[in-house]
Amino acid sequence: MPLWQLFVPEDAYTTEEKHDLGNRITNIYSDNFDLPRFYTTVIFHDLKPASFLVGGEERGKFVQVAIVHAARTAGQIGERLGVSEAEVNSVFIKLAHEALQPYVADRGYEWELHVENVPHETWNIDGMEPPPPWSDVEKRWAKDNRSSPYVTADA
Amino acid sequence: MPLWQLFVPEDAYTTEEKHDLGNRITNIYSDNFDLPRFYTTVIFHDLKPASFLVGGEERGKFVQVAIVHAARTAGQIGERLGVSEAEVNSVFIKLAHEALQPYVADRGYEWELHVENVPHETWNIDGMEPPPPWSDVEKRWAKDNRSSPYVTADA
Amino acid sequence: MPLWQLFVPEDAYTTEEKHDLGNRITNIYSDNFDLPRFYTTVIFHDLKPASFLVGGEERGKFVQVAIVHAARTAGQIGERLGVSEAEVNSVFIKLAHEALQPYVADRGYEWELHVENVPHETWNIDGMEPPPPWSDVEKRWAKDNRSSPYVTADA
Repeated sequence: MPLWQLFVPEDAYTTEEKHDLGNRITNIYSDNFDLPRFYTTVIFHDLKPASFLVGGEERGKFVQVAIVHAARTAGQIGERLGVSEAEVNSVFIKLAHEALQPYVADRGYEWELHVENVPHETWNIDGMEPPPPWSDVEKRWAKDNRSSPYVTADA
Repeated sequence: MPLWQLFVPEDAYTTEEKHDLGNRITNIYSDNFDLPRFYTTVIFHDLKPASFLVGGEERGKFVQVAIVHAARTAGQIGERLGVSEAEVNSVFIKLAHEALQPYVADRGYEWELHVENVPHETWNIDGMEPPPPWSDVEKRWAKDNRSSPYVTADA
Repeated sequence: MPLWQLFVPEDAYTTEEKHDLGNRITNIYSDNFDLPRFYTTVIFHDLKPASFLVGGEERGKFVQVAIVHAARTAGQIGERLGVSEAEVNSVFIKLAHEALQPYVADRGYEWELHVENVPHETWNIDGMEPPPPWSDVEKRWAKDNRSSPYVTADA
């Protein structure tokens, strides 16, 4: 988490472009919200035309983005930064569009995105409850770019 | 949004049948709840037998449907129509089954569906917050079958 | 429901291994929470390397698991078993890891999972509202391993 699923026409993006998009999306969270890079998963569903319909039609130049958040709630980020939850959401949406822009708007694609929030209680990495946001253990995971065992007292 | 993901056996449906299903699903929202047609995205995941297991087995004639709603809540529709939220849900389920019926029940398929609701605040089309339900801007988007810039005051 | 989507590298698992994983996941619910086996759907998204990025990179040995629950809430199970909701969640996570372990940890894979809960009101099987948890009709469905018509009074 965050988990981004991008539903795209097959052959819309090259391997290099997918890597770039993956990095741009990961940077949203690592640069702005201090998330370990490996928290961010980006999945491309490369769809055949008949399997991707918008308004009942093969729309062609269209990308659908489904995002799931668990690591930080907008409320937690807002509290830390001293801004409202609405501001956090609005900043996030702006960052998401900047990340996507060269691959959608700049190429004449239409796109749609939405965010779902899931509870922290049933989120799990490598068999462990992820450490609390901004904790020392989370910082270690970020530095190592992978999980490692910890005892709750250390987090 | 709405976003329908249909998990289907590969080769279950032809291109023409997918188009028809896409239109039937889009019609649910456009005919009954006044949604712009292009709001409705229908995605088919065409799955190989070993990648689609029900009760641990390759069930074969089975379709799983995952639906995400954001454009209208059942509460908003109920308020507008003067009926309860439960009635709206029940009407929606009935319409969904009518749309699916020729492609599931009538062919001896089993099927399952569920709906998730996501917050309007983090739903976005072409870089814009979608206009309020039944607003003039939404009507324009519906007529054009695509988004166009607007100022909040116009919506 | 439950619906498990496993995002895996293509060719990570053989057909036999997928079947085994499907059975292990189904057993979590049937052995511990009395769910009919056919309630459990397991879907594998077999992804090409460039379409599956973690921290912006092709992580390789990584599995992402997205779970949707509707049949029982942790609260309902807790009430029946006389334990807290937190305990139910913690037991579930433990069972999920035991099911996955031979296919992730034991093979040097990293993995992440999360659970979403969806409302019972808009969950539907073969055109019917599923019967109440632990009802006689649900028991019949479990025994037959498929749905059958029922009148609400019987459930």
